[in-house]
Amino acid sequence: MERKVDVVVVGGGPAGTISASTARIYYPEKKIVLITESERGLIPCAIPYMLSSLREPSQNFTSYEPLKSKGIETVFDRVVEIDRKSKVVLTEKGDRYGYEKLILALGSKPIIPPIPGIEKKGVWPIKKDCQYLEQMVSDVRKSKSVLVVGGGFIGVEIADELSKIQGMKVSLVELLPRLLANSFDPEFSEMAQEKLQSSGVRLILNTKVEEFLGNGHVEKVRLSSGETVEADCVILGIGASPNTELALKAGLDLGKGKGIWVDEYMRTTDPDVFAVGDCAGKRDFFTRKDAPVMLASIATAEARIAGANLYKLKVLREVKGTIGIYSTYVGGLVLGSAGITETTATREGFEVRVGTAQVVDRHPATMPGASKNLVKLVFSRESEALLGGQVAGGISCGELINTIGIAIQKRISLTELETLQMATQPCLTAPPTMYPLVLAAQAAAQKE
Amino acid sequence: MERKVDVVVVGGGPAGTISASTARIYYPEKKIVLITESERGLIPCAIPYMLSSLREPSQNFTSYEPLKSKGIETVFDRVVEIDRKSKVVLTEKGDRYGYEKLILALGSKPIIPPIPGIEKKGVWPIKKDCQYLEQMVSDVRKSKSVLVVGGGFIGVEIADELSKIQGMKVSLVELLPRLLANSFDPEFSEMAQEKLQSSGVRLILNTKVEEFLGNGHVEKVRLSSGETVEADCVILGIGASPNTELALKAGLDLGKGKGIWVDEYMRTTDPDVFAVGDCAGKRDFFTRKDAPVMLASIATAEARIAGANLYKLKVLREVKGTIGIYSTYVGGLVLGSAGITETTATREGFEVRVGTAQVVDRHPATMPGASKNLVKLVFSRESEALLGGQVAGGISCGELINTIGIAIQKRISLTELETLQMATQPCLTAPPTMYPLVLAAQAAAQKE
Repeated sequence: MERKVDVVVVGGGPAGTISASTARIYYPEKKIVLITESERGLIPCAIPYMLSSLREPSQNFTSYEPLKSKGIETVFDRVVEIDRKSKVVLTEKGDRYGYEKLILALGSKPIIPPIPGIEKKGVWPIKKDCQYLEQMVSDVRKSKSVLVVGGGFIGVEIADELSKIQGMKVSLVELLPRLLANSFDPEFSEMAQEKLQSSGVRLILNTKVEEFLGNGHVEKVRLSSGETVEADCVILGIGASPNTELALKAGLDLGKGKGIWVDEYMRTTDPDVFAVGDCAGKRDFFTRKDAPVMLASIATAEARIAGANLYKLKVLREVKGTIGIYSTYVGGLVLGSAGITETTATREGFEVRVGTAQVVDRHPATMPGASKNLVKLVFSRESEALLGGQVAGGISCGELINTIGIAIQKRISLTELETLQMATQPCLTAPPTMYPLVLAAQAAAQKE
Repeated sequence: MERKVDVVVVGGGPAGTISASTARIYYPEKKIVLITESERGLIPCAIPYMLSSLREPSQNFTSYEPLKSKGIETVFDRVVEIDRKSKVVLTEKGDRYGYEKLILALGSKPIIPPIPGIEKKGVWPIKKDCQYLEQMVSDVRKSKSVLVVGGGFIGVEIADELSKIQGMKVSLVELLPRLLANSFDPEFSEMAQEKLQSSGVRLILNTKVEEFLGNGHVEKVRLSSGETVEADCVILGIGASPNTELALKAGLDLGKGKGIWVDEYMRTTDPDVFAVGDCAGKRDFFTRKDAPVMLASIATAEARIAGANLYKLKVLREVKGTIGIYSTYVGGLVLGSAGITETTATREGFEVRVGTAQVVDRHPATMPGASKNLVKLVFSRESEALLGGQVAGGISCGELINTIGIAIQKRISLTELETLQMATQPCLTAPPTMYPLVLAAQAAAQKE
């Protein structure tokens, strides 16, 4: 079958669906087709919570019905080739879709390191595939001991979830000497470590997995320390790499990074082809280096830019640089990070000025529901621009990190934060005299 | 006694204490004396919670010990005159304090309207006085029926608190046709109204109090509707007016507003006298009109500016205009407002573009602890600058309104919000595909 449409979107994750629905809003007259491999989608960030917090894995599944109601056609098929000269994509089922504009939202695939025995049953890399994840959850829930490999967000959240399952023995192996090392400074990593340990998770840091042992199904894992750990099941959360094969085959450029090269308007080297989300290259807002940040929130921001810029650059919608803004929840503690850490800033040659404050998020502190929130802010020493912030504490930190995120995006200065106007309320926030962003800025101002 | 010090601060509320401690930080060599009338302070925003949520009123009291430990001397006395020519303040006890720099943090006093019978016992204007409030709480807790006069933040929070007391009959009288009318658009006022009503509070809107009846102690209240309501006790929460007598007597200018005139650096017409907090005049960030906003959070922001600017304008610390950023908590619902409402914007001649979004603050929505958050954003139609935002929903709205507050202060545009980068996490926030600030901005973009 050969069809001519206006906009073809390849990929059904957050990047693909939001590109399509944004294109729908800005170009209501265009025919839009989204091609995705599976009839069910899922919320990628909630994969860890399928293990315990959500009763059924299917609670995390989504359908493409909402796109249909917006007038976006969804096709369940796999794109196998892009012919940029004829402006056509070819699918596995043998269909051909002619396009005016093409959006690649190809996602990423889990990194599977060449560790002996990694092909064994019971070793589960995290794939964004509903059926696969249902099997993974079922296998994990039957297990008595699970080893998690990787101490990034996914690994930490999975270990935290597993620790809630009665009788489950959970270990986490990380190559680096601390958890969440890309997004947090050591004192925050330690808090996550303490929380996991107090929930009974065994942390094995500074250690490499050497081999997965077992007869067909994994039974044990041999570590670089020489130790062998029992594991009925292993979850691999060691990162992902962008899906770029299709783009490479079509002659698109990858630039210097690993993802598909895009400009600030999300256009690839072909002006009629856009790339968004995990498959697209990113540059850090501050370091100006390749930023391998794969977050649905970044993907959707890029998708909103691409969808609006498809046919014309009506207003300047652009990625000014990727800011890692993260939050996670471990053992009842919220940890958030935005921008660059002190560790990264120092390594990248920034001269910094750092301030911290720890304040109870109610006032007086005797009000019900109070948690102590720690805030750390990192400023450029001379220019006083806010480079990054980290928070740890109660649920209120979930949005507190987003106030820091907006402040970074709008290039707030130390002085502006010191004299910030904000809402404070006894049941909801720290007191006006001690709002943590203000106090942390003030503490930084005192540093030479 | 006559003493010569460097900095004299008059007033012991949030404005006074934060001025003094900021001056301490920026001018460590200066001798600072803070003069306040009472040996106990309190957190003004938590006054409503002294009625029920806090077991003992004294849980809301604070001492001046922390100032002492910072090397700030506290004097318990009342300033009765300022002699600007000799640069001396005179106290009730007959002492004289010579100053180089003077900070007036004189606060405000409750408005007491000339209603017949208002002097009766059991009619309680809200005064920021510990002993007085202890008596008020004790009187209220003994009562079976309480009438609250005034439907602003204080009135609403007090009515909400009273509704938690078993067997208490609570009514609230408001002159305007809706609650919280200065800070919220009608649809948000209605939510507060519904919450109070469902907690059993009787709302009497569009109504004036004509007379307080009773033999010495209030027993009944006659309303403009002709109705008479029984009340063992009345709480007046109808606003406050700045304490400016001392400043006026000293020949300082009030400008066109009601508070002491100050420039952007918080200097009065006398360059050695600063004024901060409720007693100081304020201009709205957008309307450029007199802004009678009396909030501890505004007061502390001003205090941080004054304290740093006392002897030199080392960096540009200034009030660029007062933004009302509020949050409140009523019947388990958080309501927040920042900047100007649609109602105010339209009345003040702004051409606006408005967008709303309602999103669950977890993802998937089946995650534990989920609340539905409503966000409304008001933009300048042509320039696309964010003028204001309102939120209603779960606890996460407490900091969500502060993200909007920072966005306003940094003059974020509609397009910047539409393409915002933010952290989203299943246990903490809305999903990346539906972050409410982004969706509300997108909805506004669709408006003509």
